[in-house]
Amino acid sequence: MGIGKKIIALFILSLTLPSLWGQVIDSPDGNLKLSFDVNNNGTPIYSLDYKNKVVLKKGGMGFVINDSQAMDAGFKVDNIQYDTKEEYWTPVWGENNRIQSHYKEMLVQLIQKESRLKLNIRFRLFNDGLGFRYEFPVQPGLRCFVIQDEKTEFRLAGDHTAFWIPADYDSNEYPISTSSLSQISTLMDDVRKEGLAAKAPALGLVIQTPLMLKSIDGLYINIHEAALVNYAAMCLNVDDKTFTLTSHLTPDKAGVKGYIQTGSVTPWRTIVVSDDARDILASNLILNLNEPCKLTDTSWIKPCKYVGVWWEYFTGGGSTWTYTDAQDVVIGETDYTKLTPHGHHGANTTHVKEYIDFAAENGFDAVLVEGWNEGWENGGGYLKERVFSFTKAYPDFDVEGLHRYASSKGVKIIMHHETYSTASDYERQLHDAFHFMVDNGYDAVKTGYVGRLIPRSEYHDSQWMVNHYLHVVKTAADYKIMVNSHEAVRPTGVYRTYPNWIAQESARGTEFESFNDGIRPDHTTILPFTRLMGGPMDYTPGIFEGDLSTYGSNKRSSTLVKQLALYVTIYSPIQMAADLIENYKRYPEPFQFIKDVAVDWDKTDILEAEPGDYITIARKAKGKNEWFVGAITDENARTATIPFDFLPDGKKYIATIYEDGKDADWEKNPQSYHIFKAVVTNKSVLKQKLARSGGAAISIVEATGEEGLRGLKKIK
Amino acid sequence: MGIGKKIIALFILSLTLPSLWGQVIDSPDGNLKLSFDVNNNGTPIYSLDYKNKVVLKKGGMGFVINDSQAMDAGFKVDNIQYDTKEEYWTPVWGENNRIQSHYKEMLVQLIQKESRLKLNIRFRLFNDGLGFRYEFPVQPGLRCFVIQDEKTEFRLAGDHTAFWIPADYDSNEYPISTSSLSQISTLMDDVRKEGLAAKAPALGLVIQTPLMLKSIDGLYINIHEAALVNYAAMCLNVDDKTFTLTSHLTPDKAGVKGYIQTGSVTPWRTIVVSDDARDILASNLILNLNEPCKLTDTSWIKPCKYVGVWWEYFTGGGSTWTYTDAQDVVIGETDYTKLTPHGHHGANTTHVKEYIDFAAENGFDAVLVEGWNEGWENGGGYLKERVFSFTKAYPDFDVEGLHRYASSKGVKIIMHHETYSTASDYERQLHDAFHFMVDNGYDAVKTGYVGRLIPRSEYHDSQWMVNHYLHVVKTAADYKIMVNSHEAVRPTGVYRTYPNWIAQESARGTEFESFNDGIRPDHTTILPFTRLMGGPMDYTPGIFEGDLSTYGSNKRSSTLVKQLALYVTIYSPIQMAADLIENYKRYPEPFQFIKDVAVDWDKTDILEAEPGDYITIARKAKGKNEWFVGAITDENARTATIPFDFLPDGKKYIATIYEDGKDADWEKNPQSYHIFKAVVTNKSVLKQKLARSGGAAISIVEATGEEGLRGLKKIK
Repeated sequence: MGIGKKIIALFILSLTLPSLWGQVIDSPDGNLKLSFDVNNNGTPIYSLDYKNKVVLKKGGMGFVINDSQAMDAGFKVDNIQYDTKEEYWTPVWGENNRIQSHYKEMLVQLIQKESRLKLNIRFRLFNDGLGFRYEFPVQPGLRCFVIQDEKTEFRLAGDHTAFWIPADYDSNEYPISTSSLSQISTLMDDVRKEGLAAKAPALGLVIQTPLMLKSIDGLYINIHEAALVNYAAMCLNVDDKTFTLTSHLTPDKAGVKGYIQTGSVTPWRTIVVSDDARDILASNLILNLNEPCKLTDTSWIKPCKYVGVWWEYFTGGGSTWTYTDAQDVVIGETDYTKLTPHGHHGANTTHVKEYIDFAAENGFDAVLVEGWNEGWENGGGYLKERVFSFTKAYPDFDVEGLHRYASSKGVKIIMHHETYSTASDYERQLHDAFHFMVDNGYDAVKTGYVGRLIPRSEYHDSQWMVNHYLHVVKTAADYKIMVNSHEAVRPTGVYRTYPNWIAQESARGTEFESFNDGIRPDHTTILPFTRLMGGPMDYTPGIFEGDLSTYGSNKRSSTLVKQLALYVTIYSPIQMAADLIENYKRYPEPFQFIKDVAVDWDKTDILEAEPGDYITIARKAKGKNEWFVGAITDENARTATIPFDFLPDGKKYIATIYEDGKDADWEKNPQSYHIFKAVVTNKSVLKQKLARSGGAAISIVEATGEEGLRGLKKIK
Repeated sequence: MGIGKKIIALFILSLTLPSLWGQVIDSPDGNLKLSFDVNNNGTPIYSLDYKNKVVLKKGGMGFVINDSQAMDAGFKVDNIQYDTKEEYWTPVWGENNRIQSHYKEMLVQLIQKESRLKLNIRFRLFNDGLGFRYEFPVQPGLRCFVIQDEKTEFRLAGDHTAFWIPADYDSNEYPISTSSLSQISTLMDDVRKEGLAAKAPALGLVIQTPLMLKSIDGLYINIHEAALVNYAAMCLNVDDKTFTLTSHLTPDKAGVKGYIQTGSVTPWRTIVVSDDARDILASNLILNLNEPCKLTDTSWIKPCKYVGVWWEYFTGGGSTWTYTDAQDVVIGETDYTKLTPHGHHGANTTHVKEYIDFAAENGFDAVLVEGWNEGWENGGGYLKERVFSFTKAYPDFDVEGLHRYASSKGVKIIMHHETYSTASDYERQLHDAFHFMVDNGYDAVKTGYVGRLIPRSEYHDSQWMVNHYLHVVKTAADYKIMVNSHEAVRPTGVYRTYPNWIAQESARGTEFESFNDGIRPDHTTILPFTRLMGGPMDYTPGIFEGDLSTYGSNKRSSTLVKQLALYVTIYSPIQMAADLIENYKRYPEPFQFIKDVAVDWDKTDILEAEPGDYITIARKAKGKNEWFVGAITDENARTATIPFDFLPDGKKYIATIYEDGKDADWEKNPQSYHIFKAVVTNKSVLKQKLARSGGAAISIVEATGEEGLRGLKKIK
């Protein structure tokens, strides 16, 4: 279609939609409308409406590159191409076994009138939101360049409620604050005081994505990005007078925000929108904007449930990652067999065998072992280029013996590569580390990036490190190894492309239960709306011992039953039962839910959701007629409404319902629970009480006959 | 020995050597005397005398660490230990097959009176000079720390003549200036204007090591360092009023000069001294201060002579490293087979075969091929993390076919890994790159680091990069690969420890003959006193075509015969015959010397030497009764005196003498040569005329009988 015809098409659109302006496309269902034009300055501008409500007002787009060269003005539209696409695809693992991708696309080709500089913007409008990215076409006069600033504006229509954490180039582990945009400035200084292992807070009023917003008139808006590859992670500058958010790319330490080559594209900027919060959680927009799976063989990628030598390091019981009290060990030179062990090393062969036994007895797939390898005596990174060996075990950790022992019981051991952020040294050891894993039967690794980074030019979320994480994942795929990265840049759906990137942390997880600032009761009702928008989180739930103060530490943030519900409400294809063996042995009844719950799903139904308040989700286990429901609430007790219409029609099912005890309360009586079985059909609706920061967890199986139903309560 | 006895010992020394002070040790031959003490501020101070002349006046030692913490004052001597050692060792390759190491050692253990901070200084005094290093003992209260400054002073006794290049954290390729110390400041600005691919000149009056100095009273002093490992390269601040040099470590871009852990040691600071310049060149002090070879099998390490597809890229003939004119190629994505070749790619299969044929016909071991791999279209680095593939050849370079072809002719192909200083990406590809080499029959690689560095926190000579170069060499050793690194930090004898580090460039080499600023006639008479003090240089001599202006470029700096002499005067276990095949075919007679000359030696004799003026060296080929002599001069013609007393007694030898033609002159008639054979014995002394920037090259074999001597001139 030539330019002439397009102008006519636009004219017709203008007649039919007089409130809009410029070039307009709408979503397949017509609810979302995107407008685009170039203003008098030649700045590309766009706006977004949802059911005749303004999501984003006219906001600018573009860049400043190199030495203050404008790539955000002086443009005219050279050409526009439209497209529509609908397809279905099947993820290797996920919340659903079939995902629809249906969008209308507008590719705008811009050219600067004077410099002839070219820039393309590709918009994709789905029913659940908008994605757009910049594309830098190959052109004369521009080849490799640096980004001084990305100038993408998200001009919100009002002083929305925001669920936010401060921008920090090195951490995503801040507690989530809930406030109006205009209140952020009064809270920011205090929030930034949070004690974290590595901190590089952005200056000024800057917050992170995924950012969840709610407008007074009931719109839910989520801003994030998809397919973050070879680009810095985006934060958002907040103008709290105009409620305009502007992209703020993570710089390197020289202040450069991107090293770009023409022929490449940016990540997608994503705006997920609905007037129903459940649609935000159900959205597949970010996944749909990522590239399809690039691995040809994915048969070795397997979701799993695991236990591990981990939580004991946080509970104050004395168990440590370190093997000795030695100072000044040098990896590759120090002979650990000649050092005196201090006697409280957690990852010793005997103790790991206890975990292997426990995993085998209770049907867990794997045991994570932290503290198995040389180097923990180094205490921290940054001043040392090499902190850890990834191929040498401590003398009391028998790699081969444990491999044999675990194999004989059908259990895997999960490798642990804490790097203390010595990323460059990790790359040096990477092939040897993965060879070592293959040789010793490991097929999954938890990576860690605690502390300040080497290369010292980089932050955790800068372009170089974004490439590092993906380099590790791609190299791991060559060895058929799954990666669960902690303290890495927050996910953006890249796991669709590399599904061996099985999970990430990249947020405040369960470990903070043991730190003084703890976890707030509403935290897990927000996480799915923020951090989890980009991908699964290894949150490590399942803490049964509520009163961590017996270990001289903090108090758990929820009831015991809410911990169960998290296995459903926090999606991840790997889930840890994080508590100590002794605590699970004290509570065998609720532990049964953790043993039963699936980690991979055919279908997910978001039953109830309100960010910061509550979430109720039902999921069908992959390939099985088993369903699991999780419901959680914040610091307020509530009654969840759970319709069982996600079940197939015409059959009876037995639901095992794990509920907070009548006297349960996260602060006063967190461990109180009640378990009962009931008969349900797809007509049943359960009114389920949740205690303060409480929850409910339900496992459902088909009734095999009337026999088993006798005496059970029926839910109507 | 307790502290009491040491004080008595010192007292006796003071009586017998009244001009000295503090703790004194002398060299095995008694010519050098080192004095050490702690002054009133608690600063460690040392001085050095040679035959009753002052080499270094009392100079301070120590550091400033962390946040301005003094580690250069407040000390007292806690203990001193003395030792003496004499041994002989055999290098894997070298200028001699047997090296003596004989030194007296003094280990001073210092402790700060208030902080109890400990610092050790280890001195080793050889007949040819002094080495000392700092050692950071494991101690309470200090573990990992950063160096803000090293405060080592070299307090010279006068305004010596210096052969210097300006300090530059990214380059050693400046032309060498000759001036008094007090003249440096007037020359510095101009010298720093030199156009180089990467430049990061230090601020102020700072110069590089190896620094050659000559005093008015005839002392030759060389300052450098040995065993540079996990530490930044040292430059020298110049105080041109007091003639004090102070260590100036290469910082990273955050300004930090070292990340250090207690239990480690610094490189050795070396001062080679003599009143005979020949002793400077003959010194093995830097090698002796390096660790013995750490490779168990060295049988695969083989010195070699090579030709290559290289010089044609500099001569303006049109041959290029690139395969296409394509812009914006992306390694791993661009399909080069679909690009249109521009038709003047040097490293094409047909052309490389010509070089293989030429090498086979003329007895060369190997052919270097630059421009064989994808990525040269990227033009430069720094703005791109990945510039090159080290495993994908251009479509017109048949890796397997050339391997077969070369093997069938007994010739190796030398791999080329130009990185454009994308060091982090090179590390990512390293294992794959070396696997590729092994799979395709390569056993040596020329590495390159042109341009600015990634990681962007680093300079070519900063600590991280020092570790990088060694990481590459050590990893290469695992694959039995030899490394010839260009644009890497200048060598410090580490090749003793890792003899697969077969050579380096790290100075202004032959390529500059083709650049506008060129090479000065005295350059090669200085290099052995500066750059080569640390190790062999891949200078790539043998340029026969004197008038490069026919290629639109510069004029060669020497006569043709001087180019021959460089194969002897510039030591390297790998030597290139760098010129084009066509030029060697034009001059088959002098080319014979390059074909004959050895690259590994049993014994070396420095016959004449004066930095900046002339060098005459005789060497015996390893394991053969063949000798080679090279004599060169600067811009002045001279007569070299060559005594043949390096030859065994009682026999007659046939010397083939390659001399400048009578009308030879580097500017007017560089290609004029004369070749004749003569009979010599070990009593013979040759007075050999050298043209302006000329030379002489002599190959010597035993006479097998009187037959072959008939008609030959006899040299008395």
